[in-house]
Amino acid sequence: MRALITGVSGFVGQALQAHLQASGDEVVAVDRADGGVDITDQAAISDAIGQANVDVVYHLAAQAHVPTAWEEPVDTVRCNVEGTMHVLDAAYEAGVKRVVFASSAEVYGSITPEQLPVTEATTPRPNNPYAASKLAAEAFVMQSFHGRDQEVISLRSFNQFGPGQQPRFASSAFAHQIARAERTGDTEIEVGRLDTRRDFVDVRDVARAYRLVALQGRPGAIYNVCSGVDRAIEDIAHGLAAKSTADVRFVQRDGLIRPVDTPIVRGDASALAADTGWAPEIAFETTLHDVLADARARVAHDES
Amino acid sequence: MRALITGVSGFVGQALQAHLQASGDEVVAVDRADGGVDITDQAAISDAIGQANVDVVYHLAAQAHVPTAWEEPVDTVRCNVEGTMHVLDAAYEAGVKRVVFASSAEVYGSITPEQLPVTEATTPRPNNPYAASKLAAEAFVMQSFHGRDQEVISLRSFNQFGPGQQPRFASSAFAHQIARAERTGDTEIEVGRLDTRRDFVDVRDVARAYRLVALQGRPGAIYNVCSGVDRAIEDIAHGLAAKSTADVRFVQRDGLIRPVDTPIVRGDASALAADTGWAPEIAFETTLHDVLADARARVAHDES
Repeated sequence: MRALITGVSGFVGQALQAHLQASGDEVVAVDRADGGVDITDQAAISDAIGQANVDVVYHLAAQAHVPTAWEEPVDTVRCNVEGTMHVLDAAYEAGVKRVVFASSAEVYGSITPEQLPVTEATTPRPNNPYAASKLAAEAFVMQSFHGRDQEVISLRSFNQFGPGQQPRFASSAFAHQIARAERTGDTEIEVGRLDTRRDFVDVRDVARAYRLVALQGRPGAIYNVCSGVDRAIEDIAHGLAAKSTADVRFVQRDGLIRPVDTPIVRGDASALAADTGWAPEIAFETTLHDVLADARARVAHDES
Repeated sequence: MRALITGVSGFVGQALQAHLQASGDEVVAVDRADGGVDITDQAAISDAIGQANVDVVYHLAAQAHVPTAWEEPVDTVRCNVEGTMHVLDAAYEAGVKRVVFASSAEVYGSITPEQLPVTEATTPRPNNPYAASKLAAEAFVMQSFHGRDQEVISLRSFNQFGPGQQPRFASSAFAHQIARAERTGDTEIEVGRLDTRRDFVDVRDVARAYRLVALQGRPGAIYNVCSGVDRAIEDIAHGLAAKSTADVRFVQRDGLIRPVDTPIVRGDASALAADTGWAPEIAFETTLHDVLADARARVAHDES
């Protein structure tokens, strides 16, 4: 298969590119970070996709930072909604067989414990402009299917983690601090809330889901991508600590403690499993091992 | 109550303004058509709502023409999605107690007979960019509720009809041709498909729904506004003909016959009824009478 990835320099983009190449697919990479195509530039997107001659487009490029979305909601819409429209239109015009859109479980938003597990039929309750922009983009993905029979699929990934993630996410932040503690002996690790429970899924399992839906997913579908298990942030902290040679201790910092109106999220990926056979394959402990190894390498690199 | 209406010059805007004034509310009218505020102009919207000192904003302004939405989807998003974001933000900043957003049953799109009647829990399947833009705007309305406790409500009106509608809609088109036939004796009425079944609701009943949800609706809710009855376009044609002094006959024109992938739509407004006591009050035959009387007056005016 020949595939184009937008936003290839991101966390999932990197994992997807590696998975596609390992699977023997040819990959055309599109990313603003490489001095390449800006997703809000309709003509540039049209050219890039028009000339790529690919079977599938994985559309991952987005403004994905929630605080930025609060500050700049219109710019977020232009990138996440209009950008998705440009990609859909360009793929349609170019006769690309399939488009897979990176939505997010953020669209579910303010989930109550009675609504668990979250299925694709759970009513979304977006509670920030990033989440709303992803839900809005899904509307245009669905319209491309129902209105012009375009083969499109949206994936709502839950909390993705794994090697390569930026340290503003909890598991990566903990791992980086622990990796530094192993070098410096300063074993105090700053954390925020530890009781929040989320559904964590390894980014490499997510990458497999993208390729599987491109091959076997149902056109027009939305699929959850999740482990089906909820774990506390504390489980990540202590799991990483147990793998460390340093005797770290966790200290809560008020500045990192945010109010959470959604104490627990757990997804249901049975639709994805039924249609493609997907299941998460990477054990939680394996991900933690790889996240810590990655953080050690990055910390060593930064200090060398 | 003091209320601001965006898009007041439109079909629903006119009916809503009349209903609010008849109910003793003060109305601030905002409309591009009056040389006033363009909904895509964030600063102008912010000023208009900031200075209006109203209790409620009814946001009706939109690019509502489906063929235009196919031709100019990005402009449609800027008006319907970004415009709604501007209104929500301006109302939030100004401390407006409540915002009622004019969504549309168009969001349901490709409904199959097994999904009837359509409730608010029915999965939307938008099949044109106008429908997608309304669903996308709803995402930001919901986000304003879940993300910052803003009191917002979306109404999904089904097929609105009644006096004052533009003749590009079937009932008004038929009535105008019949009114002309009564004057000219040319009794051939051009029609398209007559077998499509839709849920028709009088625009004056819709106007009552807007005011009722502003008073008693549940913040964060989405409500269907519909009659709960499906009727064929043919019922409208023959109902109007029966009220005419002319002996009209209907002739199908190929150019007016569009493929329809949704043969029948019927809504369920029980959520609106439960929360506000709303029920349609204007009989189908009364609406037809008033539509024909309105068409006669407009035809007479055009020819005088």
